[in-house]
Amino acid sequence: MVDVGIIGAAGYTGSELLRLLLFHPEAEVKVITSRRYQGEYVQRVHPNLRGISRLKFSGVNLSKIGDECDFVFTAVPHGISKDITPELLDMGVKILDMSADFRLKNPELYPVYYDYEHPRIDLLEKSAYGIPEINREEIKNADLVACPGCLATSGIFGLAPIVKYEAFNLENIIVDTKIGSSAAGDSPSSSSHHPERSGVVRAYKPTNHRHTVEIEQELSKIAKKPVKIALSNHAVDIVRGILATIHVWLSDDQPIAEKDIWQMFREFYQNEYFVRLVRDRKGIYRFPDPKVIVGTNFCDLGFELDVHLPRLVILSAIDNLMKGASGSAVQSFNVMLGIDEKTGLDFPGFHPI
Amino acid sequence: MVDVGIIGAAGYTGSELLRLLLFHPEAEVKVITSRRYQGEYVQRVHPNLRGISRLKFSGVNLSKIGDECDFVFTAVPHGISKDITPELLDMGVKILDMSADFRLKNPELYPVYYDYEHPRIDLLEKSAYGIPEINREEIKNADLVACPGCLATSGIFGLAPIVKYEAFNLENIIVDTKIGSSAAGDSPSSSSHHPERSGVVRAYKPTNHRHTVEIEQELSKIAKKPVKIALSNHAVDIVRGILATIHVWLSDDQPIAEKDIWQMFREFYQNEYFVRLVRDRKGIYRFPDPKVIVGTNFCDLGFELDVHLPRLVILSAIDNLMKGASGSAVQSFNVMLGIDEKTGLDFPGFHPI
Amino acid sequence: MVDVGIIGAAGYTGSELLRLLLFHPEAEVKVITSRRYQGEYVQRVHPNLRGISRLKFSGVNLSKIGDECDFVFTAVPHGISKDITPELLDMGVKILDMSADFRLKNPELYPVYYDYEHPRIDLLEKSAYGIPEINREEIKNADLVACPGCLATSGIFGLAPIVKYEAFNLENIIVDTKIGSSAAGDSPSSSSHHPERSGVVRAYKPTNHRHTVEIEQELSKIAKKPVKIALSNHAVDIVRGILATIHVWLSDDQPIAEKDIWQMFREFYQNEYFVRLVRDRKGIYRFPDPKVIVGTNFCDLGFELDVHLPRLVILSAIDNLMKGASGSAVQSFNVMLGIDEKTGLDFPGFHPI
Amino acid sequence: MVDVGIIGAAGYTGSELLRLLLFHPEAEVKVITSRRYQGEYVQRVHPNLRGISRLKFSGVNLSKIGDECDFVFTAVPHGISKDITPELLDMGVKILDMSADFRLKNPELYPVYYDYEHPRIDLLEKSAYGIPEINREEIKNADLVACPGCLATSGIFGLAPIVKYEAFNLENIIVDTKIGSSAAGDSPSSSSHHPERSGVVRAYKPTNHRHTVEIEQELSKIAKKPVKIALSNHAVDIVRGILATIHVWLSDDQPIAEKDIWQMFREFYQNEYFVRLVRDRKGIYRFPDPKVIVGTNFCDLGFELDVHLPRLVILSAIDNLMKGASGSAVQSFNVMLGIDEKTGLDFPGFHPI
Repeated sequence: MVDVGIIGAAGYTGSELLRLLLFHPEAEVKVITSRRYQGEYVQRVHPNLRGISRLKFSGVNLSKIGDECDFVFTAVPHGISKDITPELLDMGVKILDMSADFRLKNPELYPVYYDYEHPRIDLLEKSAYGIPEINREEIKNADLVACPGCLATSGIFGLAPIVKYEAFNLENIIVDTKIGSSAAGDSPSSSSHHPERSGVVRAYKPTNHRHTVEIEQELSKIAKKPVKIALSNHAVDIVRGILATIHVWLSDDQPIAEKDIWQMFREFYQNEYFVRLVRDRKGIYRFPDPKVIVGTNFCDLGFELDVHLPRLVILSAIDNLMKGASGSAVQSFNVMLGIDEKTGLDFPGFHPI
Repeated sequence: MVDVGIIGAAGYTGSELLRLLLFHPEAEVKVITSRRYQGEYVQRVHPNLRGISRLKFSGVNLSKIGDECDFVFTAVPHGISKDITPELLDMGVKILDMSADFRLKNPELYPVYYDYEHPRIDLLEKSAYGIPEINREEIKNADLVACPGCLATSGIFGLAPIVKYEAFNLENIIVDTKIGSSAAGDSPSSSSHHPERSGVVRAYKPTNHRHTVEIEQELSKIAKKPVKIALSNHAVDIVRGILATIHVWLSDDQPIAEKDIWQMFREFYQNEYFVRLVRDRKGIYRFPDPKVIVGTNFCDLGFELDVHLPRLVILSAIDNLMKGASGSAVQSFNVMLGIDEKTGLDFPGFHPI
Repeated sequence: MVDVGIIGAAGYTGSELLRLLLFHPEAEVKVITSRRYQGEYVQRVHPNLRGISRLKFSGVNLSKIGDECDFVFTAVPHGISKDITPELLDMGVKILDMSADFRLKNPELYPVYYDYEHPRIDLLEKSAYGIPEINREEIKNADLVACPGCLATSGIFGLAPIVKYEAFNLENIIVDTKIGSSAAGDSPSSSSHHPERSGVVRAYKPTNHRHTVEIEQELSKIAKKPVKIALSNHAVDIVRGILATIHVWLSDDQPIAEKDIWQMFREFYQNEYFVRLVRDRKGIYRFPDPKVIVGTNFCDLGFELDVHLPRLVILSAIDNLMKGASGSAVQSFNVMLGIDEKTGLDFPGFHPI
Repeated sequence: MVDVGIIGAAGYTGSELLRLLLFHPEAEVKVITSRRYQGEYVQRVHPNLRGISRLKFSGVNLSKIGDECDFVFTAVPHGISKDITPELLDMGVKILDMSADFRLKNPELYPVYYDYEHPRIDLLEKSAYGIPEINREEIKNADLVACPGCLATSGIFGLAPIVKYEAFNLENIIVDTKIGSSAAGDSPSSSSHHPERSGVVRAYKPTNHRHTVEIEQELSKIAKKPVKIALSNHAVDIVRGILATIHVWLSDDQPIAEKDIWQMFREFYQNEYFVRLVRDRKGIYRFPDPKVIVGTNFCDLGFELDVHLPRLVILSAIDNLMKGASGSAVQSFNVMLGIDEKTGLDFPGFHPI
């Protein structure tokens, strides 16, 4: 049993972390912080926890948190974590950071994509990018895990086998995502106002989204050569979930059969509990759909080969708050603890929902 | 550990039963039946169970089921269970029936509300109406539990303390419900066709719904006198959930304070884990809302006293597939087993969803 | 052709007024105001008007508006109109006020329900309550029309024939409404934030909503005796629309047949184009549903007599922004102009939507 | 004034045609047919038309229809129109066919994509593909207009300027669409059952959709060389609307500025009322969104140039039942009549909806 804290527990990522950790058999939640709701019971913000937890939000007192916690999850806006994480690390606390502050290995990307110069390049080198299916050993030995972005996760899972196996043309890859409203966080705004947000299919960041470089970083590592991808995102009328539709062009001279692709995916993800390959011939759930995995830590993957043009369409579905954020973080936490990765994450999802 | 079967496991009630029982530490699912999907893997119908279970649907072979199972959940259409339950009971199987076939104690109501003469009046007497919060002892000792209707459940929970404490006028009670699409089952129809069903606020059965008599039966038992209620139902654009808005008139000569009503509710439901009283002064979840309890076995209750007219408005929220059906059935199953009622039912719900 | 202005044209009521008046053959829109969007093109706020109108929002300059406009629609928050309307009236402008400032004849209700003392009781007497179906002559001759509240409209239309014909018990009437998110206006807030608002069935103002007294005022006038009603409201996951479910108790000693009730409704609303009686025996739209009338100025009415208890359930459906606000205002405007009431309001609605 | 008929008026395309033609000043609807609803009033199927029209559905009697109608809209399933259209043409009736039966100029595609050999290759040559913005003169002189598919329309509008101006690489074009449930028609099925369809982001036909070849045919004509595109479609939780996200790769050696692209779009669509270019710098509707154009005949177009990779992302939004079907057909009808193309089509859309 380890003692854990959540800095920034009033947001949506914090909400999921809290829910998961309250029911986690190896964790005890000691501290949850929120500047805005300091002193309030969790149920005031997270109505699902009524009768479940009597915890109250506190302010951020790093030395107290350092005293009380073995592990801290930092669910704070980009740019905040880089300033508090070093102090906690110095106190011997292990950190799972939900922000982007330690995700990118190349410090030059921070001014471009996050508007700040990174103050701790040494920690960028030491941090592990938190996808256990890809970086399990690194995570196991890390003191600081940089939990991946949600869109990045959906893209990386779909493309990792592709870039590894060298059978594909790695030019002109498109990652076209459809995402729910919870990904934008808990702050009201005109764009999230129900009459304006309901029923949309709204392009946002059709080009140059920050997660592009995260995806490229991880895929390049797997491919052992630079990989570029083009990411375009769309808000749709769901609360949770991402579907990434990934368009990959085949090498003209290298025909590839569907069964070979299945083989690559199976091999890449063998023994990975949280990755499910979807290949039904009939029924209405023949492809991955975020509806199916609401609340779960699964990444569902499927694909179809085009017969009209030399193209492969890969579908990758996750819950942005789970496999795309807090579920994945708890999975990394389990890896760090050396326990079964499924611990506290075995919720199978609902049908229907 | 007991062996259980689900007859009718391809529908939505069956889906939830299966999900709950697959993760139940004291149950092993031995048989699941579906005439339509006989021979198919569960994931073909319930995509959430991909990778979770390799069970296949079988046909209904009662003697085989009787051999293999200690408990059987019958999730079949009204009128079917009455014909199969007796045989299973004779084989020593305990039954949790999800249909209406054993809910009504008065056999004369069956021809009126369900279009058949009841063949086993003796079993109507022996069956327990499956709301543990009200009939715990009966359920504990029963071989046959008649699990309540979903609308009935929402109404009974909201009104039980009211009819018990005699402070209210029991005339002219209105139960006005709003309910999700999963309550109508898994068969496609024009009324459930997405373009026709999306965005509706559709009155259905504004009067004389079958669950009326279920509610009256249980409330009359609690009140120890006949109670009549008027039930009106509305389909809204959610998949899961019921909100019952219950309008009760106060006795003119008997003023009652809000704190007295809280006292009644607290007293009636003290120590009931699955009943939560919602009474926040601020925030956006000041009243029960089915959104908050999607997937949980909670019944959230709240109320407001009118200052304009002598009226009390009670709000009762449940998930129609959980506390309104399968969750409640598993709770009764736990009672019958003599184990902690929360077993397999401790999922706290999501925020947001 | 008359010149019209809209004060407060950036909100949702203003949006609909603008759309209707831009296409109205007898009106020319001269001024539209918005403090917040002063100087911006309408399409910046109302994206549907891209390519339709090159109008810009201006600030509020009453004397300029008085010079330029024959009619002004004031779509401003409660409490503002009472301060600007008198000046415009003095300049000979006719006013259609969308706020509550001139709806209530009894000035004592303003401090109770709107937190201010009314400064112009004389205007309360002179204003016409803007439901042409009930107050056509008054509206025709008025300089100031107080356009009704949306919930009030749904209740009044459903109950007007009932209170007129004296066949019913007027005690214990419940108006239980379900309403879309646009009714709360265009200001973002936690309660309207998409992740929190999507999928709700949220009671708000279960008792003592302001529109209660509006409904009572108009019904008492029709009944020629005081009528009290109990109003409870629920937010559901639609953008536009209200369904009011109205529960009325019959006098025990005065049985009434369904055909008599149809007769009352037909008689009361004969020749009223915008009131449609819904009484289909089959199909999925047997009762009024706000889905059917999105964007229209219709009020659809239907009912069902209970056979279990002496109760009548009336269903009343409107679009809160149309018959519940701007459509109704344009209808009153047509009455004031002495032209066909349908002018500019003949949009029939979509199927499906 | 011309007399028109609709064969297949009970479906969703028929519903919109009927609504538009009932209010069309130059058309009188003489016949509407439906095998299933023969003898029923339109309101039985299209509840929006209650009180608007007293028309009844009749069976299909071609010689009677030929006698009574100058124009017939055939809103029937693929494969039916090819058998009835020739007879009507022989009677001197002009036809607007909503099915795919006359869209493809190459008869060899019919067995591949529609499972039949085309019996009237002569009519394929004579029919006009019904996009006035591209084929106005042809439509004007045609007796038979083949109205385009909805997905095809969204793709063609977005790509027409691109393929014309030769500044782009025409390899590897992706058209990734998101579409509402009404596009699948009015027949209930498991995939359209509300509990299964609500909240989905469901890939369907990720490759090789029939509309691919329609898009290619029209673009190749404009480009004056063969153009290939890759189409992938996704069902999202809206009833009406399509957003096509179109990914085009730039020629590496030919840099192009945003203003040049605007210039191309403006030039291509100058004077086209129904095409709107969306290029706002701020606000929440900076890109085309089908939400904005529900019920309208607009095609909203916008784009963003990628700075990361040489890519252009074009967004194209339409209402699948309007510009994607019935609105477009009425626009072609207006062209054939030689009247203002906007006649009966000037509805501007709602904000919010």
